[in-house]
Amino acid sequence: MAKLLGLRCRECGAEYELQATHVCEMCFGPLDVVYDQAALRKVVSRQRIEQGPASMWRYRDLLPVEDDTPVVTLGEGFTPLVKADRLGAELGLRNLYLKNDSMNPTNSFKDRVVSVAISWARAHGFETIACASTGNLANAVAAYSARAGLECFVFIPVDLEPAKVVSISVFDPNVVAVRGNYDEVNRLCSQLLESTPWAFCNINIRPFYAEGSKTLTFETIEQLGWKLPDEIIIPIASGCQFVRHRQAIRELIDYGLVRDDRVPALTGAQALGCAPVYNAFKSDTPERVLPVKPNTIARSIAIGNPSDGIYVNRIALETGGVVEAVTEDEIVAAMRLLARTEGIFTETAGGVTIGVLAKLARAGRWKGDEVVVAYVTGHGLKTADVLASVDGHARRVEIEPTLKSFREKVNI
Amino acid sequence: MAKLLGLRCRECGAEYELQATHVCEMCFGPLDVVYDQAALRKVVSRQRIEQGPASMWRYRDLLPVEDDTPVVTLGEGFTPLVKADRLGAELGLRNLYLKNDSMNPTNSFKDRVVSVAISWARAHGFETIACASTGNLANAVAAYSARAGLECFVFIPVDLEPAKVVSISVFDPNVVAVRGNYDEVNRLCSQLLESTPWAFCNINIRPFYAEGSKTLTFETIEQLGWKLPDEIIIPIASGCQFVRHRQAIRELIDYGLVRDDRVPALTGAQALGCAPVYNAFKSDTPERVLPVKPNTIARSIAIGNPSDGIYVNRIALETGGVVEAVTEDEIVAAMRLLARTEGIFTETAGGVTIGVLAKLARAGRWKGDEVVVAYVTGHGLKTADVLASVDGHARRVEIEPTLKSFREKVNI
Repeated sequence: MAKLLGLRCRECGAEYELQATHVCEMCFGPLDVVYDQAALRKVVSRQRIEQGPASMWRYRDLLPVEDDTPVVTLGEGFTPLVKADRLGAELGLRNLYLKNDSMNPTNSFKDRVVSVAISWARAHGFETIACASTGNLANAVAAYSARAGLECFVFIPVDLEPAKVVSISVFDPNVVAVRGNYDEVNRLCSQLLESTPWAFCNINIRPFYAEGSKTLTFETIEQLGWKLPDEIIIPIASGCQFVRHRQAIRELIDYGLVRDDRVPALTGAQALGCAPVYNAFKSDTPERVLPVKPNTIARSIAIGNPSDGIYVNRIALETGGVVEAVTEDEIVAAMRLLARTEGIFTETAGGVTIGVLAKLARAGRWKGDEVVVAYVTGHGLKTADVLASVDGHARRVEIEPTLKSFREKVNI
Repeated sequence: MAKLLGLRCRECGAEYELQATHVCEMCFGPLDVVYDQAALRKVVSRQRIEQGPASMWRYRDLLPVEDDTPVVTLGEGFTPLVKADRLGAELGLRNLYLKNDSMNPTNSFKDRVVSVAISWARAHGFETIACASTGNLANAVAAYSARAGLECFVFIPVDLEPAKVVSISVFDPNVVAVRGNYDEVNRLCSQLLESTPWAFCNINIRPFYAEGSKTLTFETIEQLGWKLPDEIIIPIASGCQFVRHRQAIRELIDYGLVRDDRVPALTGAQALGCAPVYNAFKSDTPERVLPVKPNTIARSIAIGNPSDGIYVNRIALETGGVVEAVTEDEIVAAMRLLARTEGIFTETAGGVTIGVLAKLARAGRWKGDEVVVAYVTGHGLKTADVLASVDGHARRVEIEPTLKSFREKVNI
């Protein structure tokens, strides 16, 4: 059964055949994949999903890959949803959950979208995979291209964190370090579409790529016992994944995977150092997202000109969510708070998410019994440099390997 | 049902009550946990395991934690077993599998043993968790102590890799940096047992801690469709996990979880820079493991005086395995080989495992159809410093954010 019918413009509804393109020729709106919903309704069920693999591919029916397409996988997804009682106690939340998506093959949620994108691209004859990246995407693209045996070009800002550069280079892709910020990298890649026969994961094959994000929400709701939470806190970069989480909830309801139909509040998190979506949300014209020049340690979400920003604000307002932002100090404090209370080490983007969670909780947004989920989307080792000063932390002593030295230096 | 009967000396068989102790008072042999096998035989089944959580706790029945004990978990284990066709093609192996245990909460297999150890310790009233560590163990102990809300002391060599220090410190444990190597750190901790009421994961509560290792093999065999492979390649530090993998296979057979009873060859991997077990294996007296002074980039397995070394060689010989070792250059080459062919970025210890796999394959150890599994036990970001030079790799160019600059600098 071919379940994929084509592409459709989110704005004007114009329809296109399945192909590597992402912008409507009529109105320049973004294109989304169209599924044969009637056919899917006959096969999709909780039981079928639960019998699938312990990866995001248990949701294969709802992803843009036909049944006979071999997928490029490293076992991404189905990451733990942990109940966060100690962090919850500090924030007055008795039903707080963390979806720890740093536990993916390349330690960020990007493995989900890249696994789908490269599976689609390989099945459609592409021999070179490319991307414009703030770091995590390049890491995933380089790894999955290696796994698939495909040629790879990654475009990154020249000043990327050293740990990220190593974790990309090890897979031996072609690395193009661009003297500019992410938005400039992205613009260059968009210009290259015409002259290269490449699959740029987050540009020309974006409609397929983006669909992978849905699995983060599918899994979360499955792990909650097929129950919708009250609110989800999601980091905002381009806004692409935010839009897909809304779509994922729609599909869970449409396919009868959840009984409830009360859509959770979807809340966005940004760093104040790069907060174009937040700025618009707080203004009188939330759909007028003006570009900014990023200046934040949360580089993996530092997109100054977010393609889906307008949809983020539309969805946040529709669902009763908000968009909130935090300072650089609040980001680092939240990284430490999460580590100290729950044993999870997240990168700066995770600090943004937890920082916004903490800020909203302390401002009295919740009564205490709401089911709140925060998406922790990348690992702390990727941005370890921002915490290097922790090395000199107060609870460290240096001793000789003797009992005497221990007793002199350690007070217990 | 209480399934734990006590502790028993591996050497003389002396029996002890369940308690925080690891050495036989009679003969100084190591103590192992004794289970009520008759009772377990009535409950353990494939179906019961398959219905369990997507973590190592699906094997809870076979772990030293009673049914009513709340466990300290971050969703560790049930990591992907990936078929490695591209690496296999380079090595002439058509059925090569990699168990990617770097996909654990703190990015190494240590999360398995620590989750068990701290669950046991908390249930038995310990308020402070401690360990002697080469880095990965301290990382896991600090994280799980934070998750459990317990006091924590980690003892590490003072020259630990910077990334590991940050990834430990972020959890805010008490860090004792010892001016010495791991063996000196370990000796100091053993001396501290008498004067502190602490649970040292890998010392006094080692019998419980060690049991967590079994899950790596349980899962691998489950993921192979409940079939035993022909050979497993395992990194050797203290030898502790090697012994448990042998025990895991015994239990899989005893409890009828596999039909076959042909024990796989268990093969050990060491760095030549710290190869006491390998040295003994190659000698005429494989049970005479002499201590060495470690000097290798594979610091996470650099134990010069391995407590279970003698058992490693006994098991390797019994099962038809070998113990092999690789040079520093071979370690780095193997890290790159694995990344380039399969998209998996492992730490130096994983380079040792894959290096030994490659060395044995190239020496003609296998015909090609054997089912071979390699345990990749830690993530490359933890030892990114050894690959820092990759940054300057040949396939990197730096350009301005313009099409003109791209065309001048990139040949495609």
